[in-house]
This record gives sequence, structure tokens and C-alpha cells, in this order.
Amino acid sequence: MFLNSPMQADFNQEDQGLHEECGVFGVYSQDGALDPAYSCYNALLAIQHRGQESCGIAVNNNGLISYHKDMGLVSEVFRPRMLESLKGQIGIGHVRYSNEKDNVRENAQPLMMRYVKGALALSYNGTLTNAHELKHELQRRGSIFQTTMDPEIISYLIARERRKTPSIEEAVLQVMPQLRGAYSMLIMSPQKLIAVRDPHGFRPLCIGKVEQSYVVASESCALDAVGADFVRDIEPGEVVVFDRNGLRSLKADTKVQKSSCIFEYIYFARTDSVIDGVSVYAARKESGRLLARQHPVEADMVIGVPESGIDAAIGFSEESGIPYEKGIVKNGYIGRTFIKPTQSERERSVRIKLNALSHAVKGKRVVLLDDSIVRGTTSARIVKMLKDAGAAEVHLRISSPPFLWPCYYGTDIPSRDNLVACKHTIEEIAGITGADSLGFLELDSLKDIIHSDGTGFCDACFSGNYPAEIPEHLLTGQSDRYCQPLEHL
Amino acid sequence: MFLNSPMQADFNQEDQGLHEECGVFGVYSQDGALDPAYSCYNALLAIQHRGQESCGIAVNNNGLISYHKDMGLVSEVFRPRMLESLKGQIGIGHVRYSNEKDNVRENAQPLMMRYVKGALALSYNGTLTNAHELKHELQRRGSIFQTTMDPEIISYLIARERRKTPSIEEAVLQVMPQLRGAYSMLIMSPQKLIAVRDPHGFRPLCIGKVEQSYVVASESCALDAVGADFVRDIEPGEVVVFDRNGLRSLKADTKVQKSSCIFEYIYFARTDSVIDGVSVYAARKESGRLLARQHPVEADMVIGVPESGIDAAIGFSEESGIPYEKGIVKNGYIGRTFIKPTQSERERSVRIKLNALSHAVKGKRVVLLDDSIVRGTTSARIVKMLKDAGAAEVHLRISSPPFLWPCYYGTDIPSRDNLVACKHTIEEIAGITGADSLGFLELDSLKDIIHSDGTGFCDACFSGNYPAEIPEHLLTGQSDRYCQPLEHL
Amino acid sequence: MFLNSPMQADFNQEDQGLHEECGVFGVYSQDGALDPAYSCYNALLAIQHRGQESCGIAVNNNGLISYHKDMGLVSEVFRPRMLESLKGQIGIGHVRYSNEKDNVRENAQPLMMRYVKGALALSYNGTLTNAHELKHELQRRGSIFQTTMDPEIISYLIARERRKTPSIEEAVLQVMPQLRGAYSMLIMSPQKLIAVRDPHGFRPLCIGKVEQSYVVASESCALDAVGADFVRDIEPGEVVVFDRNGLRSLKADTKVQKSSCIFEYIYFARTDSVIDGVSVYAARKESGRLLARQHPVEADMVIGVPESGIDAAIGFSEESGIPYEKGIVKNGYIGRTFIKPTQSERERSVRIKLNALSHAVKGKRVVLLDDSIVRGTTSARIVKMLKDAGAAEVHLRISSPPFLWPCYYGTDIPSRDNLVACKHTIEEIAGITGADSLGFLELDSLKDIIHSDGTGFCDACFSGNYPAEIPEHLLTGQSDRYCQPLEHL
Amino acid sequence: MFLNSPMQADFNQEDQGLHEECGVFGVYSQDGALDPAYSCYNALLAIQHRGQESCGIAVNNNGLISYHKDMGLVSEVFRPRMLESLKGQIGIGHVRYSNEKDNVRENAQPLMMRYVKGALALSYNGTLTNAHELKHELQRRGSIFQTTMDPEIISYLIARERRKTPSIEEAVLQVMPQLRGAYSMLIMSPQKLIAVRDPHGFRPLCIGKVEQSYVVASESCALDAVGADFVRDIEPGEVVVFDRNGLRSLKADTKVQKSSCIFEYIYFARTDSVIDGVSVYAARKESGRLLARQHPVEADMVIGVPESGIDAAIGFSEESGIPYEKGIVKNGYIGRTFIKPTQSERERSVRIKLNALSHAVKGKRVVLLDDSIVRGTTSARIVKMLKDAGAAEVHLRISSPPFLWPCYYGTDIPSRDNLVACKHTIEEIAGITGADSLGFLELDSLKDIIHSDGTGFCDACFSGNYPAEIPEHLLTGQSDRYCQPLEHL
Repeated sequence: MFLNSPMQADFNQEDQGLHEECGVFGVYSQDGALDPAYSCYNALLAIQHRGQESCGIAVNNNGLISYHKDMGLVSEVFRPRMLESLKGQIGIGHVRYSNEKDNVRENAQPLMMRYVKGALALSYNGTLTNAHELKHELQRRGSIFQTTMDPEIISYLIARERRKTPSIEEAVLQVMPQLRGAYSMLIMSPQKLIAVRDPHGFRPLCIGKVEQSYVVASESCALDAVGADFVRDIEPGEVVVFDRNGLRSLKADTKVQKSSCIFEYIYFARTDSVIDGVSVYAARKESGRLLARQHPVEADMVIGVPESGIDAAIGFSEESGIPYEKGIVKNGYIGRTFIKPTQSERERSVRIKLNALSHAVKGKRVVLLDDSIVRGTTSARIVKMLKDAGAAEVHLRISSPPFLWPCYYGTDIPSRDNLVACKHTIEEIAGITGADSLGFLELDSLKDIIHSDGTGFCDACFSGNYPAEIPEHLLTGQSDRYCQPLEHL
Repeated sequence: MFLNSPMQADFNQEDQGLHEECGVFGVYSQDGALDPAYSCYNALLAIQHRGQESCGIAVNNNGLISYHKDMGLVSEVFRPRMLESLKGQIGIGHVRYSNEKDNVRENAQPLMMRYVKGALALSYNGTLTNAHELKHELQRRGSIFQTTMDPEIISYLIARERRKTPSIEEAVLQVMPQLRGAYSMLIMSPQKLIAVRDPHGFRPLCIGKVEQSYVVASESCALDAVGADFVRDIEPGEVVVFDRNGLRSLKADTKVQKSSCIFEYIYFARTDSVIDGVSVYAARKESGRLLARQHPVEADMVIGVPESGIDAAIGFSEESGIPYEKGIVKNGYIGRTFIKPTQSERERSVRIKLNALSHAVKGKRVVLLDDSIVRGTTSARIVKMLKDAGAAEVHLRISSPPFLWPCYYGTDIPSRDNLVACKHTIEEIAGITGADSLGFLELDSLKDIIHSDGTGFCDACFSGNYPAEIPEHLLTGQSDRYCQPLEHL
Repeated sequence: MFLNSPMQADFNQEDQGLHEECGVFGVYSQDGALDPAYSCYNALLAIQHRGQESCGIAVNNNGLISYHKDMGLVSEVFRPRMLESLKGQIGIGHVRYSNEKDNVRENAQPLMMRYVKGALALSYNGTLTNAHELKHELQRRGSIFQTTMDPEIISYLIARERRKTPSIEEAVLQVMPQLRGAYSMLIMSPQKLIAVRDPHGFRPLCIGKVEQSYVVASESCALDAVGADFVRDIEPGEVVVFDRNGLRSLKADTKVQKSSCIFEYIYFARTDSVIDGVSVYAARKESGRLLARQHPVEADMVIGVPESGIDAAIGFSEESGIPYEKGIVKNGYIGRTFIKPTQSERERSVRIKLNALSHAVKGKRVVLLDDSIVRGTTSARIVKMLKDAGAAEVHLRISSPPFLWPCYYGTDIPSRDNLVACKHTIEEIAGITGADSLGFLELDSLKDIIHSDGTGFCDACFSGNYPAEIPEHLLTGQSDRYCQPLEHL
Repeated sequence: MFLNSPMQADFNQEDQGLHEECGVFGVYSQDGALDPAYSCYNALLAIQHRGQESCGIAVNNNGLISYHKDMGLVSEVFRPRMLESLKGQIGIGHVRYSNEKDNVRENAQPLMMRYVKGALALSYNGTLTNAHELKHELQRRGSIFQTTMDPEIISYLIARERRKTPSIEEAVLQVMPQLRGAYSMLIMSPQKLIAVRDPHGFRPLCIGKVEQSYVVASESCALDAVGADFVRDIEPGEVVVFDRNGLRSLKADTKVQKSSCIFEYIYFARTDSVIDGVSVYAARKESGRLLARQHPVEADMVIGVPESGIDAAIGFSEESGIPYEKGIVKNGYIGRTFIKPTQSERERSVRIKLNALSHAVKGKRVVLLDDSIVRGTTSARIVKMLKDAGAAEVHLRISSPPFLWPCYYGTDIPSRDNLVACKHTIEEIAGITGADSLGFLELDSLKDIIHSDGTGFCDACFSGNYPAEIPEHLLTGQSDRYCQPLEHL
């Protein structure tokens, strides 16, 4: 209705999902139970969903650090001879998501650098809210920057503090109070592996173990991939050092409330991961169950938008007693290089990435579970596809509250101008999407899906309740970009 | 127990699934409603599951035929400039599966050839059981062969018959009685598109329509991908000609019983396809329902091995009332180039391609649905993974009968020596897989999943009841190979 | 003057040189003195100047033939692992030149084929003048064609004759009388290597030996590259068979006069090759000496257009006593993928591929030796470049007579419309090129540069005196093309 | 004799030539007479001989800097769309040579960096002798290093000085006194192009002009490639600023004697370049003439080892009256990826890269001109090749004095242990090479080939007379390496 052609808007904005920055993985294997390079490879495959733009692996090697990194998927970047060549006892890996402007080879991680005490490699997941101020101050003192990544800033701060401290971990502890925002990171020297989670614990980070070898990962599914047993989550503000003496835990001197990202459960994380003691799959099923109670509807079947919507649909089905069905199939062969249809082909090519199971939905009243609504255009496409496939009714249930606020801690949410919930009532959104009814998860219920007392997590994108400061320069729109490599031409 | 180390056998035999040869797609668009190249591209993405080794697209072009084909996935082989350059009104595409020995660039299709009447392109899905005899006879008359593909043989036969017939379709009709075995194929001349399905109708082939433009596809999901409406399946023994006069149906002079491959429903086809009037999804759900009746069990949850096992699990859950859960997650980022773990890493890397949802299955009695058991090693790995993840019991239910016989019509089944069901009782197989109980779908029930009266389909791999002759040379082991290109080094 | 802007015409017609089709190399090494794959690799590098579009190597391998071939230079197509994998006692290789329309992967050689008696590989250099008739006749009998290469035709003829003859070499002898035109080719079966030179001996072919191993090559410089000693040239109409009994010579039953291509000496061959007993370098120097006598001029220095012009310049200098100098430098880094300047950049970029040595030529009267004039535009560019660099006078001397006739035996000469000598007097050509004087080698002198009595060579492109029939279809412009692969997009 | 198998030593040390680091090119085109990207492309092709490992181009772009750089040749790294995308008025380019350990993508130039005043790009040719000390001091102050390149050090120094100076060029002038060693470099900001040549003027750098646009290049042959007129060489210690006000010359406050590298004339530079007023071709011919006087010999012909040996041979021929001939042919198709022969193939493959013109040298007394002798093994191979080809005598004449000392200013000379002249008399070297006589250019004659009074150039590698300090750490063998990327696996 008031959105003239949602299908076209959708195509112009093809990749409109919500994204987070990166996944990290580290190994410390003194007993040789794990090969660092092969372990990183398998683990990065397991967390590839956290970033598909670039990836890399670094291992220690007789006092030096050997590495390989490049643009592309893990399966594209690494070949057998590389893994064979990357020999060592310690290793870190990285998969990177990036928005378009930073999607360049220079930003591939691990970041490799040499400072006064030797070589370091850094793998980083997060967003500093005071990056601009820190960078400006460093430049004022004569620093130069060759990338646009936060870990380059952190490297300078570590290099500066390291001159005054007896160890790299001490330097890290001195640096942490200077940092604002979200960061889960791994630092590797030729002798040590250091894992750091920011005081708010925005991004996940957990420890696993195989015999006497340790691994650290953004998500526990990576532990499974290397055959490691889950040990524990790293705590907000904690610094864990792995060296020849085993594992040591240090704590940064910060007094902030834990506020881990609730959206990890709703969308980012893999369904088989467990974060801070809560199963992602269980949280998603619970959101479906809550929706069945909050927004019940008479229907013939419950279906989910792959992948996260499926988990919520199973929960909704269990709670409501309406049978769960597979109603939408996702094509796993649509790669990063998908050739978009021309204008004249667009209308016909709605069923390429997702296809409705016409046989199943025809003539049926369908409850459709999805994880979120951003612009509304994707939901509109899916509802239309189901109705074209013969669905009698489509009742849309969203396993999160409406998006209302930008995220300053790493989630790539569009500006408020583009958030459909900022400009429209829920009823209007139902109209825009074409759904026969629409229900969002209530804001208050977020705590229930992770069995929280209402504290310990960040829901700012829904509530506007920011647990950490908002960066000044983001409000004023200043940029730190300086150069524009030509990649992929 | 008697299989010493099933895990290792599994890794030595990494790709042990059952495979079929190829998918085809064609367009005839006189009214310009479809762009042949873009349509082929989107359709081939939709049937990419039928073959990932090579792919190609050919379009007519002012009396000539333009094409591009190569080794690799559709998303790897085609770039925007190619699609732009492939202009025409008619197009055919192909995705190819091949066993190792034929996995060479020369065998990529469509096959392009010139004969006395001009140029032809062929896309082919099938296996001739008398290929060896036909080839030998052709060579005896002076023919040379540059590939190891059946369509090269068919091209010669068409070229020979075409000299005596007034049209290409007449020549095809003359050739069909000479062919034995399975073939669904598309033949494109600069003026016509001809679709052919063998008299047994082993492989699927269906027609769709967009305005006045026609498409033909191996599976109906490809019709959805180009926005076409389903018209009908091509009948066994039917030759459909698309030209400026529209669509014309001819019938080969053969009197054989239809015997379409039952395994298309069980495994090959995409769940959202409808073949010969039967929904693949419905057939799979029905097999799950039947299993629940034939092999009931007390349990806490039903889960499926992705992807086809999930559909059967939903059916089993519905019939049994045991809740459906997601118990296994499949990693979609494991590509064709996955680097296998070294011997020392193998034991630990069982949870890379598939991972158990430990949180869900821990302490639970699980019914596990899978589509088939070949060697038994994959099933053993999955059962072990679930038990390692804490499952209290694992009851394996297979949505097909035991594999006992080789397939001569295109399915790449290992020799009887490697089929676990040829050497072991069901009880023994349960032991080999480690399952607490094991149930196969009864042979008699196959007809029920496709609502048949017991005729019209081929179940030879389960029953040994071959609807068409068995090729002599396959029994004697002669080979037509002659040269060995070095690819991928 | 009358050609308004020769510089622009030149750029529109960037690649305007004269070309020949292909180079071949073969090894028969029963004693293992040579590794077939490595020998082919080194030899193909040595004859790469004969063709840069595609290349390939095939070796025998336990009754089969293994091969690798692709578009690109030898250094681009082969990697160490390939050479290691290509194990055998017999091998043939190929480098291919092609004009634009046939520049496709399918045409890469060796051609691999299987016929009634087993597998064959063919490497071919030549042009059949009756290809069209042969192809048409074969198609009429039911043959299909998958390439546009002559060796595919020859393969059919061999396959047909082989049914009636006791050996492959007997079949070749039966085929030869059916062929018209130029062909030097190598045929490899898993047991034999057969070398064939057409009765006119248009293209060169010679034999070398290392211990008890034999090699055959288009040019003797390839013998040097593998450390082989020159044995002898293969005679026109000769068929040489290499098998376990050593070397055997057969002779086709044809009675034609030898007429080897004179242009091999002037342009095609590498200066260090010796063809039919005559050194290419010596022939070029002699042409320079003759020019010094036929078109003497007062000047300060003699320079040559790299590469063949340099040899002639040395001869001119010796005969005239005018000092030889390096006056033009060629940039060896301009590859096949050179990015052409935009229209606005063209005038300035004349000195990229060739540069004048300003310091040497400034103020000097220069004699400039080049091998030929086709359109005149390249000569005009070079003369202008020298004058811009300060040359006081430029006297152009061409080491061949004016091009007046098309070549039907493999040399890619433009149509008469584009041959400057067909439309202009020598005086006018001098004006077009901007040279202060111009002299061509006299037609009568051709025999002198190869010390001939005036017979035994073909100079049809200069004289119009064709030693073999002119193909009918070339005059009428019919084409055998049928499909258009999209490469390099 | 005492060197048991020089051929083998040679192959183990395949790439034993002398190398220099890099070539630079810059454009400032306010009037648009030159397109910066296309000009850089053509110019880099012209100076590709100065470095083949990596290359890059950066252009200014609305206050930012756009760039592309990668490992590989200019013809491999750049594609048309890139040049089209690199739009601006200012541009700099770089081709890089590197010894094995630094041959990594991170070191590709131009170096891109952002500092307090904005963005800079640097292209650099040289070697700082105090790099180690500068780096150590910068690290002590908290700097981090991401490459192993000198320009990263210089960037820090500029960033530090720039805080106290009103302009980038002032900062450069403050930095220069801190630098020791050789450096010719270009610095580009979004507004300016700055060219700097070190006070000794070790490496060349010259200015050209097209209409109102300026270019700067390592060698004048790059000026020819873009159609620019030579303006002048940049003087040692000079800083030239190109901005909207035109060209401005500043002078660093250093008082050292000019000492440009004599080896540029002997080996590095392209023969058509003119450096500091002296033609490279003329210098080489002069060295040949001097050798003819210093080491006369009776012979039948003079030949040269391509390329630089040819120029000297022409000079030797002129002076001695012995005819110049082409005696050795170089294969231009041997690329960077040449597959080396196996041990068993080595002896036979001596004539791959270079081949003797047997026909010309057979039975002749040959004077062979080459530019230098390092280990002696290459010379031994060439002499042996000529004798194998039938040369009666080979008299080796070297157009430089014996190498006796390491170079600290950029030339990649092996350690003294590997320099044959450090351990053997000239007579012994003649024996090692197999030459019938051997003559080196006299040390005193170096001044004559560039018409110098004996000052103004550096001949330390021959004389041990170092014009600038020798770096301490090079003597002690400390390394700045820290990480080892895996490239090219």
C-alpha cells in the first residue's frame, strides 16, 4: 500500500540482514593433542556463519609467527599444503564480517604486528565505541594507521603499555580501562595465548579442553568441531592466559554490569551453541513458546523461515499443539557470488533463495515464525511467496521485539530511517508485510528466553537502553577511512 | 565389533553417499517472457543438488549456438558478463554429477556438436545399459569418441538417422528403440527445443510455462525458481517438441511398463519438488508415518539426519505423537574442497559436517530418521555422535528398505561387497551402527509412499526386480575409458 | 597523406602480425633417457613463439593416454605436480596459435580420441585446403564434429582406414592421398609415436636423438632445449614410425614437388633453428646482405626491428660496412593481457612495446631492417617513432618481397583489401610509412637466401604461384563454425 | 676442475643474478593531459625489469587515496576495470624486487597510511643502512610494524615531524638528515606529489613533462612510455614538490658527495634509459670498447650474453673490427613459474633459457661479452654451451671489474664467501668458467664509461670504497623479521 514496491526495495538492498563482526578461535597445545592449524581450520568452518568476507590462521613458529589470510570463505582460502606448512603449538584464527566500506584485504585478520618486545597476532570480534578518540590521540602522538580495524588501535595501546609492564598480559590489563565498547579477542605471542572479553561481555567467548590442550572460541559449536570438551565461558572483564604453566585467570579492574548481546541467541549464534550457560536452541524454542502464548492464533500448521525461524516454530508448535511442518526450503547453493536478476527478471525470481513448499501449504492457515523484521521487505516477500503458493492465511510471529534503535556494539543495523518499526505501528507493519496477523515477542519476555532476572544482557536495539556510552563521532558522522583499495574488479 | 574401525573406513570413503547423474533444464521463449541464460542460471541453482562437478548453459544465437561450461558449481562457473553475452530465445542447461573416473572437463555438458544438418546441443540425465554395445558398433563403422558420455553415442545415432528422416524429432524417434536404460534429455537446435523421456521414465522430467514461454526441468523446484507454472510431467516414452508452432507431443513406439526411480522420492529430489504427481515432501513424511507404525518405539523425541531424514522425522512424529526436535545441525559451509583431517586428527573431527545438539538430546531416548544405509559406517558415526552428546538411547529408523542390489540406471551404488545389508542381518546391522534398535521401511510399503498400486516404479536396488535389461559389459567389467586428463592438480 | 591516421588504424588492428598455426613435439624414450612430460615442457617453451593461445601434453600410460591441456602459455598451464603425474615412455605436446574465431578451449591439442583399435592423441601443425569437402563428406556419412580443428577430420579418416589396414601407420599412408594442403603432425598410440610431414613439406619437422631415445619437433631449437642431437629433417611425404623396434621410415605414395614455406625463414622460425639444412639466422643475415646490394644507401647506422629484423640488420651492416647499432628496444614484459590505451591516450603511448634508443639515433641517418610490410601501419609507427627520437633519415629495408596474395596453407595473412602492396606502388608505400626510402627484397632473391636452385619452396604469398590447390570453400566464404563458447569473460 | 660440478651448483642457486630494489613512477596532471592510472600502468611496464615480485598503483580521489596492489607482474595484477576505476589527478606506482624472505603481499607498495594530517601513499626504491636503529628507536617509543619495508619507518618519521612542521615537504626535509643509505622515493597526499632523492643520489630519479603535466620516474625509459619529454634528473638531496602551483625544488641540508650507483649503467637500467646525463647504451658500448683495448684478442666474432652483454659486444666489435654476431638466443617465454628440471634432467636442459646459435659459432673463435661474474657458475654454463655448440675458442670479457665487496645500498650481492673473485685469481676464474681467456674491465676505467672525473659515483662493490656508513646490524646479522606469511602454496 504505502510502500509502493517492496519487492524492488528488497532487491536494491539485497543483503539486508543483521550482521555482527567476526568470530575468533585459538589453540594452545603444549602436549600436541591438537594441531593448531588443522584445529583452527575446522573451528573456523564451524563459526563461518559469523563472517564470510575474509579469514586467516596464524601459528607460532620458533619465535616467529607464520600465517595465511585472505578474502574469501575458509574453504576457498586454505589449501592442504598451507595447513601442513603452518606448524606450531599455538594458533589463532579469524573469520570476518564487514560492511561494504571495510571489505578489503588489508583488514583480514589475524592482525600481524611487531613491537618492541617481539611479534604478536590478534583476532578480534567487537566494536570500540571510543575508537575515533583513541585513534585521534594516537595519531596526535605520531602513530600511523594502515588498516581501519580496531585491533590496530589496541595494538598501539598494548605496545605503549608494554614498555612499562613486565608482561604482555599486564599490558592488556592496563589497556582495558581505556577501551569502551564490545571486544572479545585473542592475542598470540610466540609463547602465549591470551583471551580477553570486555567488561560488559557483549560478545561470547568460551574455553574448551582436549587432554592437556586448550581452545578458546566465539561459540561452543567450534569446540565440538575440534572434539574439545566445554570447560566454561570466559567472564566479562576476564583475561585468560594460556602458557607453559597452564591456564591463568586475571581480571580487569572495571566495575560494570554484564550486558551480553541478546541478539546472539535470537539470530547470530549457531543453534547448537551454548552461550553463558544458555542453549541457543532452547532460547529460540522458548521464544516460540512465548509467542504461542502471547499471540495465539487458530491455524493448520506452524512453519519457520530457515534457519533460526525453524527453532522458534518447533517451540510454537509444541506450545500451541498446531503441527510443525517444513513449509519453506532454503537453497544452500546460492553463494556469495550470486548473479542478481535483471529488472525484468525480478518479479519471477522470488523463489530462488527460499522456496515455498506449495504442496504442504496449499489451502492451509499457516503460522510463520521469523527472527526479526528490519525494513519489512523481506517479510513481505516471504508472505507473498507463501500466498502465491496457495496458503489461505499467513500469521507472522517474530521471535524478537521490534527493532527501534541502532546498535553501537557491533550489530550492523540500518539507520532508524530504514527501520520499519520506527515509522509504523504494528498494525501498519502487518499491512506492509501482507500478513493476516502479526505478533512480536514482548520486550519483557526477552529475559525469559535466557532465564534471566532481567539483568545481564543488552537489549538496546529493542529498548534504547544502552549499557555503555554511545560514541560521539558516530552521531556526528566522522569517518576514519583514508583509502579505497580496488578489490574484486 | 566385527567391523574393526568403522570411523576410519568412513573417512577413507569420505563421499559414500548415493548419487545420480545430472539435472537438465531447458527454455523456449519466443515471446521473450524469459531470458534463456538467466533462466537456466536460476534453474540450475535450484537443481544443483543433482550434480556439483560441472555445469553449462547453451543458447541459440542466429543459427549458431553459444555456450559456456566448465568444472565447478553454478555459482563458480558463471559470471554476470557471461549471462549477458548468452542471448537467444532457446536455452538448455546442465549440472553434472560424476563418479571419480569421469570427472573431467571434456565431459561437461551440454554436449556441443555439428552434424550434417547443423548444430545441436544436448543435456542428458541417465545411463544407457547398452552404451558399450552401441559404442562398439559405432566404432566398428569408423566413429571416434572424444568423451566418455552417453550423449556422444546418442549424437552419433541421431546424426545417422537424421540423414533418412525429414526432421530432428523424427530422427530421435528412430533412435529411441535402439537405446536401453534411463535417459531424460534435452536437445536444442538453433530452431527447436526437444525434450525426451525414456520409455520407462526412470528419471523425472516436467514442463512449465510462463506466459507463452515454455520450460522443461528435471524437477519442479526449477520451475518455481524461474517463476513458471507447472504444466505437466513428460510421459515415459514421450518426445515433446517446442518450436515456433508451440508445443507438440510425439510418442516413441515402445511398449514397456513405466518404472520411475523410487529413490528420487527417498533421496535424490529436492523436498519441494513434485514428481509424476507425487510431492517428494509428502512421500518422505509418509515413509516416516509408516515407520512409526511398522517399527514403533517408546522415546522422548524424534530427530532426522539432514536433509531428507528431517521430512521423515516430521512424519514419524505426527504418527507416533513423540515430539519432533532438531537434534543434528548440518554445516552449510563445508565445500567441495574440504581439507580432510590427518589420521591423528580423525577421531576428534567427527562433528564437523554434522553436529549433535547436545543440549537437546542429553539424557533423552531418541528416534533417529535417516534415508538409507549403504556401508553402515556413516550411520555408525552419527549414532556414536549422538551417544557422545548424551543421548540415552538411539533408535534408528530408515525410510527405505535395505540396499541389496546394484543399480544399472544411474544411481551410483557401491558393489554388493560393500553393501552392509548383503552380508549382515538387520540385527547385525543394528550392532554395527551401534543403534539400540533398527527398523527399515518394508519393501511392500514403497508403493504406499507414492500412492501406487504397486506398479509404475523401479525398486530394483531393494528388490532385485529389474524392469530393464542388465548391461552385459558391466557384469564383465569392461571399460570404455581411454585417456586420463589431469584436472585439479 | 592519403591514409589519414595510420596510428589509429594500427591500434584498432593491434595484432596485425602474420601468424602460423602451431608447433608440435614428440618423444619416444624406451631407454628412459628422457622423461616425456618434462621433455615436452621444455621443448614447448622453446617453440612457444609458434603459438601462445593454448598448449597441451599427452603421455602413454599403461595402455591408456594421460594428458593435460588448456588455454594459456606453457608457463601458465603446467605446474610441477602435473609433470610429475604424467608418467610414460612416449609423449607428444602442442602449442597452438589460432585466429580469433577458433580461440577456444575445445580446440586445444593434443586431440584425444578413442576409436575401434584404442586410444590416439594427435598434435598437428597445418591447414588442409580440402577440409571443408572432407568434413562435408564425413558428415554425410553420419559423423559428428565437436571441434573446428583439422585433426578431428584426420582422426575420422584414420579410424575409417584403420578397419581395413593391419596397423595405424598403414592407415595413415592410406589417408595421406586424401589430404590436400599443409600438415606436419604427430600421432601417439599407447605403443607408438608416428610423425608425418605432408608431401609438399610446407611445415618443418625434424628428428633428434638422445642416447636411444628419439624426439621429433617442429623446429630444431626444441632439440637443443632437451639436449638432443639433430638427426635429420623428416622428408616431405615421409611417415616415420617410432616403436619398440626403433625408427622406421615409410613413404606416402604421392608425387608432388617439395614446396616448404619460405616465410618460416623470414619470420616464423626461431633464429637458432635449422630447417631443411638451412640456418634461419644465416638466411636472415643473407637477406640483409642482398638488400644492401639491391638497395644501397648512404647512412650512419643499420638497425633492426626486433627480433627478426636484427638478424637482417647484422647482414646489411656486414655487406655495406655501415655500423650495426641497437636502435630499438623491445619490452619483454608486455604480455597477452596488455591493457590497450584509451583513445585519448593513444598518441602518447607509441613507445610502450618498442622504444627508440634516442641517444643512438639522434641526428643520424638510419637504415631500418624489418621482415615484412602487411598493412603498412606498423611500419609507419616505427618510422615515426624513430623520427620523433631524432633520426635525421630513416631508410626502410624489408627482408622479403611485397605481400600480394593470401596463404591457403596456414599463414594468417589478411585479405588482399588489407594488403598495402595490393593497392599501392612501392613509392606510395614509402610515403605511407613515412620512410625516406624503401626497398623490398627482390622476389628472385628468395632462392638465394636458402641457397636453392629456385625450386623446393613455396613463395605464393609473394608470387601468387600456388604449389597446391586453392580450397573452393575459402573462395566462396562458407564456414564450418557452429558454436561459440564464451571464454575469457 | 676444483669446482666439481658447477652445473649443479648453478641449478641449486637458480636465481643468482644481481638485483636491485624496485622502480617508482609518479604523475601530477592538473591539466588532465595524462590519466594517472593508465600512465602508471604503461610506465610500470617500462620499468618492470627493476622488480617482478609485486606492483601497485595509487591515485588521489576526492581527498582520499584509491589503490590496487598485489603480488605478480604488472600484466598479471591489473585489469581494465581497475584502471578505469582509479580516477584522479595524481598517481604513483611501484614495481618491487625482493629477496626471498620479504617476498610477501604485505610488502607490496605503494605503502598506504593515514596519520594525523590525513592519508599518504609512498613508493620507494632504496635501502636504509640505519633501518635497524631507526626501527628499534621507534618501537621503543611504542610504534608497531606491520611490514618489513623501509618506507614504513620513513612514514613514522614523517608522521612525527609533521606535527611540528607546517607542511609535508617540510617534514620530509626534517626527516632526511635522520636517514642513512639509498632512497629515491615518491610521496603522494591527496593534494601533492613529492619526489625525494637521497643526498648521495644512489638510485636514479628523473622528471618528465607532457604539456602542463609532470611525471617522475626511476628511469627515463618510463618517460618515453607515457610520451613525456625529459626535463631533468632530480639532484642528490633534492626534494621536488608538485602541486597546484607547479613544481618547486627544495634542498635537504646535507653535505655529502654524490655517489650514484655505477651498476645501474652496467646491469640494472634499461639500455634506452639516460641517467644523470649519461646514456646507458653508450656506457655499455664504451665498456666494450675499453675491453677491446684492455684485453684484445684475435677472434672471428664478438657476441654478447643477452641483454646487457649485447651492447658491450657491439662496442667491442666497433673498436676491434671483429664482426658482431648474434651467438646466443634468449627465450622470452621462460616465466617466473618455470618448472625446474629434476636432477636427472639437469645436464640436458642447459639450453632452455639461453641457446647457442650453433650454426654461427661452429668452428669459430668467439669473444663473449657479459656484464659481470658473481659465483662463476653461470659463466661456466654459457662457455660450456658455446663449446658444445662447436665454438673453437671462447674469450670471455666482462664489462665490469671483479665483484669483491657486499653492497649495503640495495644491490642483492651474495656474501663474500660466494663471490668467486674473493677466493680466486683471474686466471683461476678463467679456469672455473672454462674460458680460453678472461678479461675484466679495469677498476680505473669505470669513470670513463660515464665520462666522469672519477668522482660522483659509487663503485664500492668493486673497490670496497664505501661512500656512506655500513650498517652495524648487517655485520652482526640481526633480523627484523617477525612473521612468515604463506604465499604461493
